[in-house]
Amino acid sequence: MSQLDSRTRSDIAVIGGGQLARMMQAPALALGIRIRLLAEAPDASAAQVIADQIVGDYTDLGDLTAVAHGVEVITFDHEHVPGEHLRELMRHGHACRPGPDALQFAQDKAKMRQRLRELDIAMPRYAYITTRTELENFAAQVGGFPVIVKTARGGYDGKGVWNVSASDEISDLFALVESGEHAVLLAEERIDFRRELAVLVARRPSGELRSYPPVESVQVDGICTDVIAPAPDLADDIAEHGEQLACTIAAELDVTGVMAVELFQTHDDRLLVNELAMRPHNTGHWTIDGSVTSQFENHLRAVLDEPLGPTAATAPVSVMVNILGGQVTDLARQRAHALAAEPNVHIHLYGKQVRPGRKVGHVTACGHDLQLVRRSAQRAAAMMQDGAEADEGFAGPTVGSTS
Amino acid sequence: MSQLDSRTRSDIAVIGGGQLARMMQAPALALGIRIRLLAEAPDASAAQVIADQIVGDYTDLGDLTAVAHGVEVITFDHEHVPGEHLRELMRHGHACRPGPDALQFAQDKAKMRQRLRELDIAMPRYAYITTRTELENFAAQVGGFPVIVKTARGGYDGKGVWNVSASDEISDLFALVESGEHAVLLAEERIDFRRELAVLVARRPSGELRSYPPVESVQVDGICTDVIAPAPDLADDIAEHGEQLACTIAAELDVTGVMAVELFQTHDDRLLVNELAMRPHNTGHWTIDGSVTSQFENHLRAVLDEPLGPTAATAPVSVMVNILGGQVTDLARQRAHALAAEPNVHIHLYGKQVRPGRKVGHVTACGHDLQLVRRSAQRAAAMMQDGAEADEGFAGPTVGSTS
Repeated sequence: MSQLDSRTRSDIAVIGGGQLARMMQAPALALGIRIRLLAEAPDASAAQVIADQIVGDYTDLGDLTAVAHGVEVITFDHEHVPGEHLRELMRHGHACRPGPDALQFAQDKAKMRQRLRELDIAMPRYAYITTRTELENFAAQVGGFPVIVKTARGGYDGKGVWNVSASDEISDLFALVESGEHAVLLAEERIDFRRELAVLVARRPSGELRSYPPVESVQVDGICTDVIAPAPDLADDIAEHGEQLACTIAAELDVTGVMAVELFQTHDDRLLVNELAMRPHNTGHWTIDGSVTSQFENHLRAVLDEPLGPTAATAPVSVMVNILGGQVTDLARQRAHALAAEPNVHIHLYGKQVRPGRKVGHVTACGHDLQLVRRSAQRAAAMMQDGAEADEGFAGPTVGSTS
Repeated sequence: MSQLDSRTRSDIAVIGGGQLARMMQAPALALGIRIRLLAEAPDASAAQVIADQIVGDYTDLGDLTAVAHGVEVITFDHEHVPGEHLRELMRHGHACRPGPDALQFAQDKAKMRQRLRELDIAMPRYAYITTRTELENFAAQVGGFPVIVKTARGGYDGKGVWNVSASDEISDLFALVESGEHAVLLAEERIDFRRELAVLVARRPSGELRSYPPVESVQVDGICTDVIAPAPDLADDIAEHGEQLACTIAAELDVTGVMAVELFQTHDDRLLVNELAMRPHNTGHWTIDGSVTSQFENHLRAVLDEPLGPTAATAPVSVMVNILGGQVTDLARQRAHALAAEPNVHIHLYGKQVRPGRKVGHVTACGHDLQLVRRSAQRAAAMMQDGAEADEGFAGPTVGSTS
């Protein structure tokens, strides 16, 4: 654990040094909010831009206590901090937002499913399974294989999720259950959905809620590639239903801060809850450039229990495309080429080492025409990944603010 | 001088730790640009949010050399770095943007007037004066007192500027000229203007220029209080003329980075150049919330010679109101009250100690109706200054992204 500068007073402790914490820093410095960071490494994405930091382990109560010292509110870059540690911090007067009672439903998909069932919220059919026979029984109930199998804890970006076509495909998984490494597996009905949507909501401890317009999330191999805001051709009543769903879940689970609800839109226009994330979320990155108030600003305002900002879009359409690690290793150098080719995009880099498929940044484009906007964002992201070059030089002056 | 962390590679050195440097940090961290700061004090506005910093003196070549070490591009929070020091840094391979040949015209109003006269740019009539007789002769030429007298160097926010009604009012000033403290005074015709406008322009070393739409700048006692973007009821041809003026000056003076041109709009719709600032400027703060690309982002992109971003507004009207030091001392605490009273504003705080009249933050509101938008921004700024409270609690949930 590195030394903390004890002279600095902080308003919020953020646990976890990933890009979500990094992107909190821009609204924090605008609003005059001081963040203290618990980072996993001194060169972690957020640790590069938040000076007041401790390098340590979010599973170590000592490190958590150190970063929380003198700070009233604790929030998170991820959902993985053990609940018992958060309860210990709360006993010492710290507010954890979201708190452990809410976070458990983001940490454990089995608990989440059970809680949402109690709330009568539409979901894929599911069962807890520990054996091959239980999986086969579940498959029979939902019309046969393929079914989705997930670990209840620890999955992300398609990891910990399997599309299972026959019960013998995941013998290794059942062995891990037997050995105790996975306490429980979750089998879920495979939904033949029309598309995936996501709804973000910010909620204050005092109850104020603001939801963002539902977006379409395009996924490839379980990784979000593109987000289109708002979701194109979504009927008003379904959009409203989606926002209501997110608000209900946030209120019933007592979530504070930003929560993302990932949804399947079925061919008959039902909305089924797929996942919950209790933090700013990849499907909300467009809000930095395309919304009156970004998800990161509203997360900070929510966890400080300050009034939330408007969630309306500032442009008719925004498209966010993730930059995944590819051929390009010097992202900063490539930035100028991408901006030359696509002058209307916003490029966001996370300061992370490029590794194949890793989310190292994103591109957002905003405008009027979905096809044009999306093509711009995708082209710029492709250049940031795969290294095509454009002439970044400049032939002659452009004059005028509308050019 | 404090120790610099030698492990950190930086892309830009920024000289000066004020709010302009602070506001560069948000786009810097988004774009993955690493800033190293030369700050006047460890608690300076920008020093609070930029970890890679040296505390030192911008008039000390040693401190400048230290902050520039290993950094290719040097830029500025203010225009006061001595030109000879910049030339020395350039001899050692550093690019200064803007460079000393451009900066001299922002440092010395007498040089600026002479250069703009060579370019045949419309200005108030002026003369260099060193004696009371010269002042009286100038006043007689321009139709009598009052006239404006300025120190050629070192003025800002109404300091170093006098509205002189009789030649004996500034005997103290002439004494300072005699003693050598002021090399030269500038007498300027007092313009009976309709209003003050400002035009921002960003320019790259390779020549690309982007101007922002002209704004109206409302000044009280020489301090900018409100900025309205775009300037209301400004005829298209005058707006275009203003942008052309700014682009011409930027190109002719070889300015790199952002420059602000402050203009008088006369009753017969001439535009006369009042002042130049070669850095992001108070009249451009609205661009953070109201433009596709903020002046701070375009300043960074310009000085790195990367393609500039679009300068179009994202809302029909934006109004920025400065928060000046007043009754309120705990600005962060007051923030929640102001946001509760005016939910649609953006509050920006600079982390500065409150002193009477000091610029400690600003508020921006964006929308469709100028009167409503301006009233919101003014009310929120007034609350941040003078301490009125609004109930920041919350009565019941708001649902929906358009509420």
